[in-house]
Amino acid sequence: MPHLTILYTPNLERPADEGGTDMQSLCEALANTMVAQRDEAGHPVFPVGGVRVLAYPAAHAAVADGGAAGRAAGGSGEYAFVYLNLRMARGRSPAVHESVGNALDSCVKHHFAPLLARRHIGVTLQIDEGTEVFNSRTSSLHPLFQRG
Amino acid sequence: MPHLTILYTPNLERPADEGGTDMQSLCEALANTMVAQRDEAGHPVFPVGGVRVLAYPAAHAAVADGGAAGRAAGGSGEYAFVYLNLRMARGRSPAVHESVGNALDSCVKHHFAPLLARRHIGVTLQIDEGTEVFNSRTSSLHPLFQRG
Amino acid sequence: MPHLTILYTPNLERPADEGGTDMQSLCEALANTMVAQRDEAGHPVFPVGGVRVLAYPAAHAAVADGGAAGRAAGGSGEYAFVYLNLRMARGRSPAVHESVGNALDSCVKHHFAPLLARRHIGVTLQIDEGTEVFNSRTSSLHPLFQRG
Repeated sequence: MPHLTILYTPNLERPADEGGTDMQSLCEALANTMVAQRDEAGHPVFPVGGVRVLAYPAAHAAVADGGAAGRAAGGSGEYAFVYLNLRMARGRSPAVHESVGNALDSCVKHHFAPLLARRHIGVTLQIDEGTEVFNSRTSSLHPLFQRG
Repeated sequence: MPHLTILYTPNLERPADEGGTDMQSLCEALANTMVAQRDEAGHPVFPVGGVRVLAYPAAHAAVADGGAAGRAAGGSGEYAFVYLNLRMARGRSPAVHESVGNALDSCVKHHFAPLLARRHIGVTLQIDEGTEVFNSRTSSLHPLFQRG
Repeated sequence: MPHLTILYTPNLERPADEGGTDMQSLCEALANTMVAQRDEAGHPVFPVGGVRVLAYPAAHAAVADGGAAGRAAGGSGEYAFVYLNLRMARGRSPAVHESVGNALDSCVKHHFAPLLARRHIGVTLQIDEGTEVFNSRTSSLHPLFQRG
């Protein structure tokens, strides 16, 4: 199951005209991107029913120097950041990791372009392969996507 | 310290008659299950004072195809999912991983049986062994459970 | 990018005189500690712009035996816990892991000393090295801290 979890500073939860961003639309764009991924043989990288994106604004956060450099540069000194982590199952090729990563990264860069131009914000995207020692799935969702 | 973290779609936070579930009772059932685990020698797998379960509904989420297949199947198109991750210390046997995983999985399947029958929901449980390079514990909780 | 994520029981979100703690000030103290870390050669361990601390109270939680031992000991039976996880990039030395871990641990012990004396609380700090298979950074924050 590919799970993409997004952790971010709470100041991004504000309306767009106050420096925030629409995280729900980012979640949907990332899910669509994941569904669209294909491997070297043209097969879907992820089962549709397994694509899951979750976003969590922190209750409290601290970034870098607390704002001193941002104020010195003439800004508000209020920083923001976003950490995106995709955990996928083991065993896919480095080429697939790279192509999935690049596709998600393009999606992220597109989404945050307006904020990157307007405020001090850092965005990090990482992909991990799961190394779980136990795995279990119970689902009434996957059967919707089984091939007939 | 065994930490079990539960991440899930916010639609599960609703009352049960609106498609949600009682996550607090699930946390308690999982903690009780963890406390009850025994290894091959009959000893507790986890120190009682170290058992910790935390549940976090996402602020935003996107699942699978966004609902198209669910609506085509005559449902609301509203999917739900739950991701449970137990991180435990290194060094326990594969047999212990399996028995702990199966015990938690039974607990999870029992809890979600009504929802699995009523809505499109996916539940994934994984166990990781921690690979930390630094570990520190400070506790006024553990002394409660020391053997005399 | 060093990301320090703090997960904790929601009872710590209360005012200090009701058994809670000021997590915002802990985030800031930990960020300052991370910025101050130096390696064996005297260089900063972390890029200033990459230091990020996020704190998340759980919506639901269960700890240990649910409170029985705490009540038997004459307390309220209400436990609390905090899990701090720092994920840093691969490749730093064991000595750096140890010195960073000890510095964060001192910060944590100082912050929680009053609560450790007053209530049943467990605090765990772990450091992981990231094992990501893809990594991307997009930032309007880092340029603030580039050397001229």
